[in-house]
Amino acid sequence: MLLLEERINKDGIIGAGNVLKVDSFLNHQMDVSFLTKLAEEFYRLYKDCDVNKILTIEASGIGIACLTAQFFNVPMVFAKKSKSKNIAGDVYTSKVESFTHGTVHDIIVSKDFLKENDNVLIIDDFLAKGQALLGLTKLVKDAGANVVGCGIVIEKAFQDGGDLIRNQGIRVESLARIKSMSVEDGVEFC
Amino acid sequence: MLLLEERINKDGIIGAGNVLKVDSFLNHQMDVSFLTKLAEEFYRLYKDCDVNKILTIEASGIGIACLTAQFFNVPMVFAKKSKSKNIAGDVYTSKVESFTHGTVHDIIVSKDFLKENDNVLIIDDFLAKGQALLGLTKLVKDAGANVVGCGIVIEKAFQDGGDLIRNQGIRVESLARIKSMSVEDGVEFC
Repeated sequence: MLLLEERINKDGIIGAGNVLKVDSFLNHQMDVSFLTKLAEEFYRLYKDCDVNKILTIEASGIGIACLTAQFFNVPMVFAKKSKSKNIAGDVYTSKVESFTHGTVHDIIVSKDFLKENDNVLIIDDFLAKGQALLGLTKLVKDAGANVVGCGIVIEKAFQDGGDLIRNQGIRVESLARIKSMSVEDGVEFC
Repeated sequence: MLLLEERINKDGIIGAGNVLKVDSFLNHQMDVSFLTKLAEEFYRLYKDCDVNKILTIEASGIGIACLTAQFFNVPMVFAKKSKSKNIAGDVYTSKVESFTHGTVHDIIVSKDFLKENDNVLIIDDFLAKGQALLGLTKLVKDAGANVVGCGIVIEKAFQDGGDLIRNQGIRVESLARIKSMSVEDGVEFC
């Protein structure tokens, strides 16, 4: 999506360790009117797939998932990263390793909000090693529900997460796919 | 807001320890079209206040804050609960105690996204003891910016958080104010 690639080139900052900072518009400050255009693109891509639920993971996926749910006019559910006192009863759970934060945590979704007849579109801001997506797809499968596909804002295509998910036969649509990036040469898209 | 009170009566579940579960529409599964109506109400309340930024705290505030930012056509910033590798440079920080989760954590906002000429509307899903709001108002004040007010979905008015914030001269608008609640008698609104 050219609009997004241009924005990444304009406002993205490449830091040490191949970290791409897009926190001025995507995952700390959110340019909501811009993100609404990305959400509309997810709708265009998946509008014929009978999506009845959007699933994401806290925290930075929530904004774009919420805006996407508006277009589909369906509920959005976000997986939580640890069990809080407010979650009672049974939950689906899986483990997710975060390479950004250097942590492993359980993610959970209440069994009330994933049902076996659900047709789920998974939305997230980043796809790198694919651990969050793997964890989310496991939650959906554990519920006996169907993963329609994944909608990703930025995929680091030089990492193996995209292949990992696509090789499972899951459709992944990424609005920007980064082929390579470095402080010296900037970002090159696929 | 009658619409919200009706929804709480219909779908809210009161658990042990005065926990009100509204996770079927507000803070785990999100009924986005319903939340959009709440966001529009925040806009009606604050539309003449020159709001140029929405501030919330991860995770469950992000959805409603994002939808509110759509109406104001301004960016939304969410405070993060711990320092991650993706946040470089200087941040504003304060400490927040969560009685729900039994934890104390730092919340941070990058100095890039709160500036002294900002006119900030703070949005959150719940107000109980007011610790999250206090932390967020401190971030805004540390930036030299102005707190226009707070927009809260559900205020537990039988706890002292609302008084705490209002006594500082800060406008607080809560769409539902709960006077009392119990498993036996349900929810009574102010």
